[in-house]
Amino acid sequence: MESQGLALVDVERGDVNGTDFKEPLLPRKKSHFPVFATGNESVSFTGIIKSNVSSLESLDYEIVENDVFKQDWRARTNYEVLQYVIMKWTFACLIGVLTGLVALLINLAVENIAGAKLLITLKLLQSNRYVLAGLLLTGINLVLVLFSSVLCVYFGPAAAGSGIPEVKAYLNGIDAPEILAPNTLVVKILGSIGAVSAGLCVGKEGPLVHVGACIASLLGQGGSKRYHLRWKWLQVFKKDKDRRDLVTCGAAAGVAGAFKAPVGGVLFALEEASSWWRSSLLWRTFFTSAVVAVVLRIGSMLCKEGKCGLFGAGGLILFDVSDVVVGFSLLDFLPVVVLGVSGGIIGSIFNKLSSRTCVFYSHYLHKKGSVAKVMLACFVALVTSIFCLCLPALGHCRPCPHEALMANECPSYGRTGNFKKFNCEAGHYNDLASLLFTTNDDAIRNLFSTNTPQEYHYASVLIFLVETFLLTLMTYGIAVPSGLFIPVILNGASFGRLVGILMSSSHNLKLDEGLYAVLGAAAFLGGSMRMTVSLCVILLELTNNLSMLPLVMLVLLISKTVGDIFNKGLYDIHVRLKGFPLLESHSEPFMHQLTAADALKNPLVKMARVEKVGVIMDILRNTKHNAFPVIDFSSPPGKPVFCGLVLRSHLLVLLKHKAFQPRRDSSLDILKLFSGFDFAKPGSGKGMVIDNIEVSSEEEDMYIDMYPITNASPYTVLETMSLAKAYTLFRQLGLRHLCVMPKTPQDEPILGILTRHDFVPENLLTLYPYLKHRATKVPRLSSFLA
Amino acid sequence: MESQGLALVDVERGDVNGTDFKEPLLPRKKSHFPVFATGNESVSFTGIIKSNVSSLESLDYEIVENDVFKQDWRARTNYEVLQYVIMKWTFACLIGVLTGLVALLINLAVENIAGAKLLITLKLLQSNRYVLAGLLLTGINLVLVLFSSVLCVYFGPAAAGSGIPEVKAYLNGIDAPEILAPNTLVVKILGSIGAVSAGLCVGKEGPLVHVGACIASLLGQGGSKRYHLRWKWLQVFKKDKDRRDLVTCGAAAGVAGAFKAPVGGVLFALEEASSWWRSSLLWRTFFTSAVVAVVLRIGSMLCKEGKCGLFGAGGLILFDVSDVVVGFSLLDFLPVVVLGVSGGIIGSIFNKLSSRTCVFYSHYLHKKGSVAKVMLACFVALVTSIFCLCLPALGHCRPCPHEALMANECPSYGRTGNFKKFNCEAGHYNDLASLLFTTNDDAIRNLFSTNTPQEYHYASVLIFLVETFLLTLMTYGIAVPSGLFIPVILNGASFGRLVGILMSSSHNLKLDEGLYAVLGAAAFLGGSMRMTVSLCVILLELTNNLSMLPLVMLVLLISKTVGDIFNKGLYDIHVRLKGFPLLESHSEPFMHQLTAADALKNPLVKMARVEKVGVIMDILRNTKHNAFPVIDFSSPPGKPVFCGLVLRSHLLVLLKHKAFQPRRDSSLDILKLFSGFDFAKPGSGKGMVIDNIEVSSEEEDMYIDMYPITNASPYTVLETMSLAKAYTLFRQLGLRHLCVMPKTPQDEPILGILTRHDFVPENLLTLYPYLKHRATKVPRLSSFLA
Repeated sequence: MESQGLALVDVERGDVNGTDFKEPLLPRKKSHFPVFATGNESVSFTGIIKSNVSSLESLDYEIVENDVFKQDWRARTNYEVLQYVIMKWTFACLIGVLTGLVALLINLAVENIAGAKLLITLKLLQSNRYVLAGLLLTGINLVLVLFSSVLCVYFGPAAAGSGIPEVKAYLNGIDAPEILAPNTLVVKILGSIGAVSAGLCVGKEGPLVHVGACIASLLGQGGSKRYHLRWKWLQVFKKDKDRRDLVTCGAAAGVAGAFKAPVGGVLFALEEASSWWRSSLLWRTFFTSAVVAVVLRIGSMLCKEGKCGLFGAGGLILFDVSDVVVGFSLLDFLPVVVLGVSGGIIGSIFNKLSSRTCVFYSHYLHKKGSVAKVMLACFVALVTSIFCLCLPALGHCRPCPHEALMANECPSYGRTGNFKKFNCEAGHYNDLASLLFTTNDDAIRNLFSTNTPQEYHYASVLIFLVETFLLTLMTYGIAVPSGLFIPVILNGASFGRLVGILMSSSHNLKLDEGLYAVLGAAAFLGGSMRMTVSLCVILLELTNNLSMLPLVMLVLLISKTVGDIFNKGLYDIHVRLKGFPLLESHSEPFMHQLTAADALKNPLVKMARVEKVGVIMDILRNTKHNAFPVIDFSSPPGKPVFCGLVLRSHLLVLLKHKAFQPRRDSSLDILKLFSGFDFAKPGSGKGMVIDNIEVSSEEEDMYIDMYPITNASPYTVLETMSLAKAYTLFRQLGLRHLCVMPKTPQDEPILGILTRHDFVPENLLTLYPYLKHRATKVPRLSSFLA
Repeated sequence: MESQGLALVDVERGDVNGTDFKEPLLPRKKSHFPVFATGNESVSFTGIIKSNVSSLESLDYEIVENDVFKQDWRARTNYEVLQYVIMKWTFACLIGVLTGLVALLINLAVENIAGAKLLITLKLLQSNRYVLAGLLLTGINLVLVLFSSVLCVYFGPAAAGSGIPEVKAYLNGIDAPEILAPNTLVVKILGSIGAVSAGLCVGKEGPLVHVGACIASLLGQGGSKRYHLRWKWLQVFKKDKDRRDLVTCGAAAGVAGAFKAPVGGVLFALEEASSWWRSSLLWRTFFTSAVVAVVLRIGSMLCKEGKCGLFGAGGLILFDVSDVVVGFSLLDFLPVVVLGVSGGIIGSIFNKLSSRTCVFYSHYLHKKGSVAKVMLACFVALVTSIFCLCLPALGHCRPCPHEALMANECPSYGRTGNFKKFNCEAGHYNDLASLLFTTNDDAIRNLFSTNTPQEYHYASVLIFLVETFLLTLMTYGIAVPSGLFIPVILNGASFGRLVGILMSSSHNLKLDEGLYAVLGAAAFLGGSMRMTVSLCVILLELTNNLSMLPLVMLVLLISKTVGDIFNKGLYDIHVRLKGFPLLESHSEPFMHQLTAADALKNPLVKMARVEKVGVIMDILRNTKHNAFPVIDFSSPPGKPVFCGLVLRSHLLVLLKHKAFQPRRDSSLDILKLFSGFDFAKPGSGKGMVIDNIEVSSEEEDMYIDMYPITNASPYTVLETMSLAKAYTLFRQLGLRHLCVMPKTPQDEPILGILTRHDFVPENLLTLYPYLKHRATKVPRLSSFLA
């Protein structure tokens, strides 16, 4: 997909100087797997965005201190400061409102489409027209998935999958323009509706996080030339940092909207999505989430009369289990430990299998092209439909409980309810059908249902568990928007319920089967996604039972700990599979054995303080670097002075506006010609490119004085600093370039520039293979060491 | 108080070189107010710890990279790594267990002492022996407060007050040994029991946070020489960073224990207490909180039979309001806005008045000495008792509601309950006495009580509000451990209830009066403490009513926003009053106009790579600096090379062990003589001092080669970097020393070292007074700008 003016850059190992060849990050069999460029400065990475290679840039959170910006800062009026503050909060509010509305829209659409589908099928089943019912259900599902996957494959390939890995990568400082583009947003919304309504084993939470991030990113772009949105107030955000803050708010809004869990959303953004955090951002994210909560509340008030399907009726709690008082004894800690340990083990197995499946799909799809992707999606839909239709035959027909029979609730005739009649005789219900023949949300609700002992036969729950596990694995990786939260909860809940049934039959413990299901869900979430506080609060907000808190906390801790022994969290694995060079929050132990100078590889491309236009054009054309050190050779002979860094984007502005001076020593007052706004960082994928700039041959002989646009105080480290320590600086401050300075006075005032890919462990280990044994010495402990 | 071997250092402006005199941070009238030393490197600050001046040091989170540590790192075995990980988690668990037990102990003691006191008094009142009852109550209260304040004044002055400002300062990198010392811990626990039992308007939450931090700090000290605890496993924590992590866990455990709110505790630690955060710490803090929750749960199970006073009976929810379904309409948003705005205004007024009171007390106390402090505490206790006894006469005798009368709940005979008879006739209760004549916790419970409209007359609630407001102001600042959470909640709840009563009389809104009280509490907390997410979760865990979430979020946002317009948060104000040089998370705008070089003031004290012992001794004796740049003058003549920084504490180790070499060029293999552990940073207040080191005159002529202990890669900035940018680096990485390097090659390889006090805005504005107008240009917006 090269929409959005994206060049399909496949920088094949080695930069302009061609000095350095090395192995890429992933075991490559296909040439389309991601590789990192090895330019020694900045860089275009490449990564797969759903099997397409596109260029990745780094974001830059450094404060650029050049004369232009300094003047701009000094000239800043109170009015401008106020404008900036107002827009920051207005956008935070807008993100909340829009994400809340999208969440309402998706929920409404899903509930109504899936509801209508199930009702029609149930009606046919009741009149014993089994074949027609089956065909109809399968047909509708296929059409929905076809719609979703065609959109995904042809109009917004970046919209496939969960979206959380992409958001996480963006917030870590990786800019792949496509992932937050408008087409991705539209496809994500529509595709998600299709996929979830079709009954696939997918959720709408990940997609909603992605939607929130897309909305935030679009708001932060500063209007649009194409749509003539050039209002000045839209353009106050000039820095990547401002946009990052917005996207963080968007991610929080997504979770808040999906789970109706505003506090959980804030914590999710904090714990999982974002890489940098400060307390003022916490406050703003909280505001956005509160707005989402209010929008949802108003929405459900408007929907109260049942006009909007289940969404309104459910109120603000999705899976309420508050009617059970948890009066557990010390003995109940045993099953908690069992659930935690097994959840951790199964969760890590799930992570492993899920990554294997995705790699398998990637290879398979690359061979066969777009049509194959659509066909795969349809195949999965077919399997899902067949499971849903045929498996209930293995279920048990159980007599309706007395109270439910009396209350005319069994068998359930609507599309919800615990008791699906399916093929059973009157007064009986098929327990497996009650789980299968419904939406995922309702299946979870049924599994969580409290005070309903012996509602499910353990064999039925086991069959359901196996089915969901297989479908979850099969589904994630196909070309539809697919969240993982709900499938994982579904697996965990059925596992927990199964344990609950077995426990209650053997012992006489006090915990309700429904609570076992909740704890099982917690165990799977912890074992697979490896979050703690945010999952805890999300589960709390989902189930509204505070008395379970100590148990949920314990289960999460145990399952996360056990899972961490085996592999990384689900989202981290998928970030890596997609080829994003994510920087972890802490350095790898082996980096202590390298110095900053060791990580420098290629000769540096430098510029003189006053440089010929032709030379600059040549350098910009022939390298992909994004920053160049500016050296002043003029002062005392033999003592060149390092002036600072100049950014490619700033040079392009001067070149475009032809701010040239005829002679080396003539002076041109750039401060009068330009304001800070001219150098404002454009939004993703909107930057100028050198190929669009034409310079005549006379102009090529003119000069540019780079001093006014040179960042005179980039962050620097001494060459003797260990790479681990330099990593801390680079990662904590969110840098794009880190200058390495010589320790002793030399002819060279600067030795080189470290960038993101110089810190990627895989790249370093390729350069220094002997460090591998050290790197793997205590791998299992690394997450505990931090 | 010079216990703990603390020197009462009152460094009176100006360092060894005596070149620089400037105004201290606070308007000083008394010489005991805090001043900052102005040594140009590191520094001993002085600050008031409850009106005593003691020395403050900075903590240092930089990774020191010298040869000794590098060798140590390389030699590290898997066994040691495992040991480190095990101890980290063991300590996290221990902190949870111990803090949980202390929380149980305090609660038990308070409930039983205060309960017995109230029961006896009530019995006397019922037999109409009013004078005796009054005398008895006053007497008991006076004794309790006397006990508490005598402990505080004579044995642990740092234990007075909330303790949260102290913990916040420690976590920001300020090390005042006394604040986390063992005597502080003991006094805090006992004093808190006394003060709360005496019915003072104080809470036990702040003290519990302090207690958690003390426990954590003591665990992290690496055993104790005095008590012969030198087990090797205790000594794995060699760095300030490890100790900081433990103290963060302790702070979280404190809140978790006080409010029975484990998730709230984690978030409190994150949002308010800590200055640095990483996701792995989130996980560990969460673990500690979970342990606290389990300890509390087990404790309340053991207490179930009512043996332990109210603590066990209340279960895990302190102020349950979950029996009300919040079915609010859009109209109900109006009172929410009213509550939010007024809460913000009153909260900021409270902050202002509270700081005024504390300053007044400080001045007053300084004049009169220790006895005056005790007398002040007793005076406040007296006033509190008189209010409690006399004010109910202004209350209204109201007939018992029918149901309560039937259930024999009115009037309440026990020490709890909504209906206190006091002076009323049979079948009636005194509404003001129900609030006053009880513990603070029960008063809050009564104000939060739902489905009890018209239980309180608005005049009674108003009187109660005024009384609590005055008492809260009077009480904070006296020499007893005094938390602020409960008083603020009490004020807010009565304000909210008052608004609720007025609203329900004029309109017919749907919200319950009890919920108004909850929202009022949220408004006051937000307006005064300025937290968002953590308060929201704490309130949720306190009240167990998830349906209020959107309203609580809105109230918190509004009140925080309104409050931020007027002044800083309560804890920030008290941090400043105590003279801690806290570094905010973001720089001040005026710092953009200074460069790093501008902030350097005094001539630098340098050392040669191989230096004479006598010279080193002189420098260490005559300066208070904690790090010295090491310069190698030996290489090419006229080109001195900057080798790195050497720390005072590391030099002292060499001096103490007499690791000298006879000649400048003889070599001594320090790597063989010492291991990394010898240079491990000792716990607070345990470091060596130069005065204890004796060196003979022959030894003074010997040499020390500093290279092996020189940190060869300190963080550096170029002199042209703006101070704002250097601030970001300094603050984000938690540095103690930041080297400023020259831009052009000069004779001097290093220009100076920036330390914490060079970044304190007040100090900078004293140096550059013309920046003041810029600093105050947009003061109100600064918190929104971040």
